[in-house]
Amino acid sequence: MVTRYLSVMPLDDALALLSHEFPCTPSAVQVPLEEAVGRITTGPVFARYSVPEIHLAAMDGIAVRSRDTRGASEQHPVILPDAARVNTGNVVPPEYDAVIMIEDVWEAGGSYTIRKAAAPWQHVRPAGEDLAESEMVMPSRHRIRAHELGALATYGITRPEVIVVRVGLVPTGSELVAAGTRPAPGQVVESNTVMAKAMLEEAGATCTRYPFVEDKPEKIRDAIALACRENEMVIVSAGSSAGTKDYTAGVIAELGEVLVHGVAIKPGKPVIIGRIGNKPVIGLPGYPLSALTVLREIVLPFLKNYGLYIPEPELIRAYVTSTIAKEIGSNEFVLCTLGRVGSRWVISPQSKGAGVQMSGVRANAYIRVPQTSEGFEAGGLVEARLMVPAAEAAKALLITGSHDPVIDYLADFIRPQGISLLSTHVGSVGGILALKKDECHAAPTHLLAEDGSYNTAYLKKFMPETEVELLCIAERQQGIVSRDGLSFQDLAGRQFINRQRGSGTRMLLDYELKKAGIDTATIPGYEREVTTHIAVALAVKSGEADAGMCVHSAAKALGLLFVPVATERYELAFRKEHADDPRLVALIDAIRSPAFREILTRLGGYETAETRRQRPGQ
Amino acid sequence: MVTRYLSVMPLDDALALLSHEFPCTPSAVQVPLEEAVGRITTGPVFARYSVPEIHLAAMDGIAVRSRDTRGASEQHPVILPDAARVNTGNVVPPEYDAVIMIEDVWEAGGSYTIRKAAAPWQHVRPAGEDLAESEMVMPSRHRIRAHELGALATYGITRPEVIVVRVGLVPTGSELVAAGTRPAPGQVVESNTVMAKAMLEEAGATCTRYPFVEDKPEKIRDAIALACRENEMVIVSAGSSAGTKDYTAGVIAELGEVLVHGVAIKPGKPVIIGRIGNKPVIGLPGYPLSALTVLREIVLPFLKNYGLYIPEPELIRAYVTSTIAKEIGSNEFVLCTLGRVGSRWVISPQSKGAGVQMSGVRANAYIRVPQTSEGFEAGGLVEARLMVPAAEAAKALLITGSHDPVIDYLADFIRPQGISLLSTHVGSVGGILALKKDECHAAPTHLLAEDGSYNTAYLKKFMPETEVELLCIAERQQGIVSRDGLSFQDLAGRQFINRQRGSGTRMLLDYELKKAGIDTATIPGYEREVTTHIAVALAVKSGEADAGMCVHSAAKALGLLFVPVATERYELAFRKEHADDPRLVALIDAIRSPAFREILTRLGGYETAETRRQRPGQ
Repeated sequence: MVTRYLSVMPLDDALALLSHEFPCTPSAVQVPLEEAVGRITTGPVFARYSVPEIHLAAMDGIAVRSRDTRGASEQHPVILPDAARVNTGNVVPPEYDAVIMIEDVWEAGGSYTIRKAAAPWQHVRPAGEDLAESEMVMPSRHRIRAHELGALATYGITRPEVIVVRVGLVPTGSELVAAGTRPAPGQVVESNTVMAKAMLEEAGATCTRYPFVEDKPEKIRDAIALACRENEMVIVSAGSSAGTKDYTAGVIAELGEVLVHGVAIKPGKPVIIGRIGNKPVIGLPGYPLSALTVLREIVLPFLKNYGLYIPEPELIRAYVTSTIAKEIGSNEFVLCTLGRVGSRWVISPQSKGAGVQMSGVRANAYIRVPQTSEGFEAGGLVEARLMVPAAEAAKALLITGSHDPVIDYLADFIRPQGISLLSTHVGSVGGILALKKDECHAAPTHLLAEDGSYNTAYLKKFMPETEVELLCIAERQQGIVSRDGLSFQDLAGRQFINRQRGSGTRMLLDYELKKAGIDTATIPGYEREVTTHIAVALAVKSGEADAGMCVHSAAKALGLLFVPVATERYELAFRKEHADDPRLVALIDAIRSPAFREILTRLGGYETAETRRQRPGQ
Repeated sequence: MVTRYLSVMPLDDALALLSHEFPCTPSAVQVPLEEAVGRITTGPVFARYSVPEIHLAAMDGIAVRSRDTRGASEQHPVILPDAARVNTGNVVPPEYDAVIMIEDVWEAGGSYTIRKAAAPWQHVRPAGEDLAESEMVMPSRHRIRAHELGALATYGITRPEVIVVRVGLVPTGSELVAAGTRPAPGQVVESNTVMAKAMLEEAGATCTRYPFVEDKPEKIRDAIALACRENEMVIVSAGSSAGTKDYTAGVIAELGEVLVHGVAIKPGKPVIIGRIGNKPVIGLPGYPLSALTVLREIVLPFLKNYGLYIPEPELIRAYVTSTIAKEIGSNEFVLCTLGRVGSRWVISPQSKGAGVQMSGVRANAYIRVPQTSEGFEAGGLVEARLMVPAAEAAKALLITGSHDPVIDYLADFIRPQGISLLSTHVGSVGGILALKKDECHAAPTHLLAEDGSYNTAYLKKFMPETEVELLCIAERQQGIVSRDGLSFQDLAGRQFINRQRGSGTRMLLDYELKKAGIDTATIPGYEREVTTHIAVALAVKSGEADAGMCVHSAAKALGLLFVPVATERYELAFRKEHADDPRLVALIDAIRSPAFREILTRLGGYETAETRRQRPGQ
């Protein structure tokens, strides 16, 4: 058995070790004001001079001697013998001790009449009112807010000294290509240090991405050594695992020492924590979501020790829609979609594949399953950690069921109203079950009953007690996707790629084959199942299969041929009680909009009122 | 009577008018990935190619044909005739359909032994698992988060198209000098457009600050016209009031039209909303806090119409410590300090002077007193709008009472522990009253009783039922500040500047004068009161007064002479029940620290154990 990790350390121990082993002394840099927002002061900041340095008018009006105004009233107006017109901010000449607002002054022929006495020092900003020379404006470790730049400018501070933590990011791997280059088979776009730079700079660090380094120990060694000289901290992307080309740990050991290889977190286990010349060196796992987790759970908390401001995620207690099982001993982090259905917050785990970066884009929250936990039961309360402001999560529209690309377009339509449509792909039956448990706002579904009707039979079966409404999103063509134009009749003997049992597409295919009297045993690969339309099309495109059944848009997206088999009703099911929810109203409006009908026509493979009109005999 | 505003419009009407009168069409710009964080997409973003485009190993291990592994178990290990070593991310050669993790493989002599069968497609990342070519990555109006840059890079998007709203900032005023220049009397550091740029850019706008424009209508006209040509929106700083040099409204009327002059908000009333060539032009009031309020309450909400993301402040219900009175009809915004005392959130209004930029630095929250309200009673519940994260506000340490510069140093000492010390300056008695109402964590106080004792008599009087602890912060010298070294005995006939009745300094002065038999009637200006040590010193420095009484540090800060009169006990009073509060513990530790004693010595004017030791006879 190949040994994979030197040790697997609990997360808390790894964080404690980092804090304990490294001095975490930040450097200081003076930055111009316009770059100071969000930066942290290294030491106290003092006013360079008093503000104001001399008495100023606090209002537009006239500067007066208050004793000259005594006795003035509506009944007994006073004409002032001596006064000076001042605007807000003007110096109050030393002979005066009060300002009267211009609204309270009647001017005629160069003299001023007033109808109210002025109190001494009224509407005068006394010298030093704001701050005196050498007084403290802000303490050490203060995070400078945008509006405070005005105050800093006023107090004479133009280059505040702030904390700088320089982090060198070293991407390694012979398979790497730069963003913008289409990767050849076996190549990968380098994205981990792109993400790391953005996340760490958002947290206030200053990152340098070094050039890509091939998988050669001596080159990796030189790159890490250089990064260690130029930074307070170094992150090496990938090569942290136990593949045949994972040299990171070896190189760190050669240049310094490996303190930890393997932390009990998932995703992210193969992380390395090392030390070279008293500087921390982190070996980041290659999978993007593993890298994300290590950055968020290890690197960002560690950066706090340098004085950077790392906000804790907002927490919301939410009902989890599916069971999360895990073994005791590691912390597990699950990306999720979170939203408010009726009066409850509900949270649904996203796909767990660590390579699936889209789950990081779709997620608006995550769950941490603690080390000592065996997971969470579906329906239980968990603590959601937010990745968007709570106000934004509160406007999420949760769509659970069968996915179709048009859902993404509907999401795009309603997004300008501030509504994030978050979809969870669990197939039609999964969607109806979620609707039954009131765990989503609506479920897209296309379930064919034996009588040829759509959806209603299933809703009656699963949700007999609940009033559910159905709105047709589109009449959708399902058909045979192939490289060479195969039709339904040509399937026998061809390598097939199928959808999973329970999916609407599979039901439709089984139904049509039965109707046509075709035996599935004649179709090789009929038992091989994937879970999305696009996975079917990709299997065909890659040559792995000759044919499959999917929607037109999936075939078109990959430039494959498509021969329609049947038209089905792709409908949106939702509880009547939620029909007035503004998020659902926006979605329904979008489905009914002419712009959406245009999208359907453009994408192809959907029947609309218009296409039906154009077809004779319908 | 001089007419000041064309109209005074309610805030909501002004916001509705802005939304209604302007199309608010943002422009689009393609930005490199590293500048994309926080930007808002203009349209949907699609994947340039499928990810992955071909089946990849999801684990380090060996690629196998799953059928070759059938029957493998602990009892019946299988030696694989054919397999290929793969690392995570490697292409799975087309002849294989599964990957076995390296931990589950026993390698010897170039062949692999396994003890568990592999399911077809296990540990394989199928082509398109993440996303297929042309699928939507993110919809329109999506705010790009830091971690999503990795996904964008992976999907081939290197220059996302995002919303740009260009805002031209035109600072006007002959009195303006640039930050970094010490203003001469009557000059002002231009800070409003510095603040506006930071606030609006934080909200996603792109700002250009134009050069300062003198108070000459033709120059202002040229500057505004230029800014209108180059931006979607223009903000003119100052000149919006009714002073003799307020030309902004006139110039806007000449180039276009003034829609609103005066909005019913406080501070910020003299705002102008105009239109030039269908572009909005906002005239910002000159006072920094008025400008801040107009930016936050009018400009930022308006920018939402362009699709920018403007977060709402977090809200916390808190008990307000003092009455906020206002007239019905305008919205009033009050900067405050907010913190948690015991189990309650309490909020204290800061100084209301619109020119006092420090109140914007000290504040961590603000209160909006709505148009229809007459204000809030002290002790009532109000809605605090947060200016820092709630977690940071929860760690605020509220210090209310008599201020001394050493409090700022204590704030600096404890800030690295994440504690923000927020002080409210209300004098010693005010502090004890706040302590009595349990509205602060501690009160610095120096109240002299007739028997010459400090603080205890007052605590007994005001809080007879409560256990209060006293810790001496410093034994502090109070003395006569002057330009020419006047002493207590020299006051008769000299122009004096006094502290307000009820302040500890005033009590001490009255006590010492009485003891010395000096009649206050012999001291001109004895009735003229200011409320801080530094205000006393500034009055002396400016020549307005010859002498006053203050602490040594205030005299020293302004380079004035100081003759001690008496030493007083400047103590920290706090409720015993809060003595274990970690914030208070940190403060107490700081007061007792040798580093703080060093600060006292350096500042001068404080007695410490050390200085006392050095004085013979004590």
